[in-house]
Amino acid sequence: MNDTISTIKSRRSVRKFSPGEIQDALIYSILEAGRWAPSGLNNQPWRFCVIRDRKMRESLAALTEYGGIILSCSACIAVLYHKPSGYNRDKDIMSIGACIQNMLLAAASNGMGAVWLGEILNRKNEAGHLLDAGEDCELMAVIAMGWPDESPVSERIPLENLVLKKL
Amino acid sequence: MNDTISTIKSRRSVRKFSPGEIQDALIYSILEAGRWAPSGLNNQPWRFCVIRDRKMRESLAALTEYGGIILSCSACIAVLYHKPSGYNRDKDIMSIGACIQNMLLAAASNGMGAVWLGEILNRKNEAGHLLDAGEDCELMAVIAMGWPDESPVSERIPLENLVLKKL
Repeated sequence: MNDTISTIKSRRSVRKFSPGEIQDALIYSILEAGRWAPSGLNNQPWRFCVIRDRKMRESLAALTEYGGIILSCSACIAVLYHKPSGYNRDKDIMSIGACIQNMLLAAASNGMGAVWLGEILNRKNEAGHLLDAGEDCELMAVIAMGWPDESPVSERIPLENLVLKKL
Repeated sequence: MNDTISTIKSRRSVRKFSPGEIQDALIYSILEAGRWAPSGLNNQPWRFCVIRDRKMRESLAALTEYGGIILSCSACIAVLYHKPSGYNRDKDIMSIGACIQNMLLAAASNGMGAVWLGEILNRKNEAGHLLDAGEDCELMAVIAMGWPDESPVSERIPLENLVLKKL
């Protein structure tokens, strides 16, 4: 098994972080990984907000039942769908999922912990206003990152139940 | 830069393949990588069909203007959305994008070439019937894979244009 596949298989959602800061250079390398995701027509419909400020995180945390994670992590990346760049919502949103996965893998490969927060989308308009990202952008996810303080276990459906056909 | 980030940044869509076969063990390792993607509530709404059969590939190729890629590759993976497993279409579809990206990265990390085909979704119902994957499943993408016979160049939007805010 090579290192990339090892990262893919060992990455887990980390929700508990130790107090150390994540340096800007590491955040940059994670955003860079997101930037290189594939997209239909190479339209790259993803945009990012990096959130470190305590007051902003408190406001964001108030919009989700997982606010504790937003408060305890070192930094968040809000991932937004830039609708004017879009050409097909399903395909655009899949590519944003690919972009998020690149960032989660890049974080894990650097020894960081991260979790993909989606529940906040129940209040995505309020979150969008708070971030002041503009009417063109729709919030798709928040990634919370930090140095991990847990080693979570997680399971997956066996492959034989996922492969419907071999043709 | 570690190997995972290097794979993320160097992966490109490969559409030209040399004639060599992809062994089953490699296909298996790619599906395994897909299986470990994150999903909301860990609902894992992805299902797969592996397509090698020449006649099936000819039928599938007839449904897209990129059929030449389906015919010239060594194997295809059809990625389907298992709707009964879904809980939120946007989040489910993003997680399927993460699953696809895991497979593309796994392929690249093994020296293979692969491309994410989306145009076939214009005829996804016909493709679904052809694969006989059942009414519960909606086609989301076809991944064509093989040994690469090109080294494509591709560009991305500069990071400073993607990061809207640093808060």
